[in-house]
Amino acid sequence: MPQPVRLFITGGTFDKEYNERKGTLFFKDTHLRDMLDLGRNLVDVEVRTLMMIDSLEMDEEDRQMILGQCRKCPRNLIVITHGTDTMEVTAKLLGENITDKTIVLTGAMIPYAFGSSDGLFNLGSALAFVQSLPAGVYIAMNGRYFTWDNVRKNRDAGIFEELV
Amino acid sequence: MPQPVRLFITGGTFDKEYNERKGTLFFKDTHLRDMLDLGRNLVDVEVRTLMMIDSLEMDEEDRQMILGQCRKCPRNLIVITHGTDTMEVTAKLLGENITDKTIVLTGAMIPYAFGSSDGLFNLGSALAFVQSLPAGVYIAMNGRYFTWDNVRKNRDAGIFEELV
Amino acid sequence: MPQPVRLFITGGTFDKEYNERKGTLFFKDTHLRDMLDLGRNLVDVEVRTLMMIDSLEMDEEDRQMILGQCRKCPRNLIVITHGTDTMEVTAKLLGENITDKTIVLTGAMIPYAFGSSDGLFNLGSALAFVQSLPAGVYIAMNGRYFTWDNVRKNRDAGIFEELV
Amino acid sequence: MPQPVRLFITGGTFDKEYNERKGTLFFKDTHLRDMLDLGRNLVDVEVRTLMMIDSLEMDEEDRQMILGQCRKCPRNLIVITHGTDTMEVTAKLLGENITDKTIVLTGAMIPYAFGSSDGLFNLGSALAFVQSLPAGVYIAMNGRYFTWDNVRKNRDAGIFEELV
Repeated sequence: MPQPVRLFITGGTFDKEYNERKGTLFFKDTHLRDMLDLGRNLVDVEVRTLMMIDSLEMDEEDRQMILGQCRKCPRNLIVITHGTDTMEVTAKLLGENITDKTIVLTGAMIPYAFGSSDGLFNLGSALAFVQSLPAGVYIAMNGRYFTWDNVRKNRDAGIFEELV
Repeated sequence: MPQPVRLFITGGTFDKEYNERKGTLFFKDTHLRDMLDLGRNLVDVEVRTLMMIDSLEMDEEDRQMILGQCRKCPRNLIVITHGTDTMEVTAKLLGENITDKTIVLTGAMIPYAFGSSDGLFNLGSALAFVQSLPAGVYIAMNGRYFTWDNVRKNRDAGIFEELV
Repeated sequence: MPQPVRLFITGGTFDKEYNERKGTLFFKDTHLRDMLDLGRNLVDVEVRTLMMIDSLEMDEEDRQMILGQCRKCPRNLIVITHGTDTMEVTAKLLGENITDKTIVLTGAMIPYAFGSSDGLFNLGSALAFVQSLPAGVYIAMNGRYFTWDNVRKNRDAGIFEELV
Repeated sequence: MPQPVRLFITGGTFDKEYNERKGTLFFKDTHLRDMLDLGRNLVDVEVRTLMMIDSLEMDEEDRQMILGQCRKCPRNLIVITHGTDTMEVTAKLLGENITDKTIVLTGAMIPYAFGSSDGLFNLGSALAFVQSLPAGVYIAMNGRYFTWDNVRKNRDAGIFEELV
């Protein structure tokens, strides 16, 4: 059997909900367990919710907490769901401080509540990358992976790309 | 940019369609391009349809054709969509004959026409595995990967598992 | 409050399920309650399952049973879910024998398991027609309604149309 | 064939879109034609977009414009898609001024972009009610219909109900 994977939830588009009364988006509980079920996942994934926020609202204290959780986690394989707007910032902090674990950050453009087809695709790829890439910190989006020290979000195109 | 990935289509549940008039399932064109779009895929994937059949109807000649296509394909990274019923048979033939390319076979339990949530999840994981695993032949299902020489389908449970 | 509506289930495409293991379609339990919930229905609907079959397999005895159930039902408003292939036959039997109740037969081209967008649309229209049409027996499909004595299924086009 | 139905679009939840980049909801084009296709609608529906706004932003001038459009419309059967927050206000204005046409206002709790199962259900019921109710102005929601002069939105419950 493959190693267990720790899945840390921080919020982001994955888990945005739609409030039918107010017509607004908000956070409640994570949908990642449901998404793993929809994907018929059979990897031993331990889901832990660290926070439920938009990554634009994530501050240094939040990131330090994520770093601390990754450090003390007994698992060597970690996937983190994260808003895409500051995903590269969190990846950089983790990459500069953790080198003995494989950590993959991933996100979604479409909330689970609206089908989140890209979320299922990204979740499947993130789980695969964490099981097959060497120790290090990566961002997995759009079927691709990037190392923490060579990625930026192209905000105009809404996608991630290498620096060089 | 990552290497291009060749995606060979052979049919299977991924591409089963629903005939509204007759209420039966059938094959027409592949939906894999649509699924890659839904997943916001940005990997350079070359889709080639080899056949559109249920893997229970796949015979030795079909498998030899798949082997021949994998051999002469100029790409080193190959993903094959395949019905799950005989996926291990095709994987064995490829594994015994090709050692210098990374080939990942994947499938779905739910047709695209019905949402195919597991298809998107498996497609994302297959694309990730083919980019990150060493040369060899693998089956990617349920978030896991198996080497061609240590996998079987547990027909009662409807899942794949190691032989040992 | 509007009158209660009796909803008789006979099967048909509405309730076809997909067997993930075998890749075949079959009947289990009705999904009409789920569909009413998805539609946020607030009409008092009493769901009763009479049978779960493809309407091509419905015989005279089955139709007599449906007629008997409609007769003895204490409600004046009745909706019947029915396969489209012989819907007109059942409608004729009911129309020739019941004149003091409003009975609307409806069906779907797409099973609930695959989204059944037309099922939700037809269910909404059938519930509306049964509340607003005078006593009589009708078929409600594709947003339209037809009286039992002036309708036939155009099998080539897969739709219902007037005889004259 | 049934009479043609004029479908006036004013916006509301039906047509809210999700901006993947900004993660916000906005209006672009109407999805009602797509929804009619999904429902396999065969009624002759003429779609006309009058405005694309949240009904909380609808002012007296907007309502007078809707009234004017309903008056000069050559059709006797009119369906209006409308945000639910002020649907009763528009219905009252129309009801006090138009008595020779059947006008049905309807809305959705879930945007088309997120599946809008209730939208398809409501659209089906609105089209059915407009074809079968006598001249007058109605609100069709949750499978029910209400006359313009005996309806209010219960904002706590998020549903419509009779005044008396």
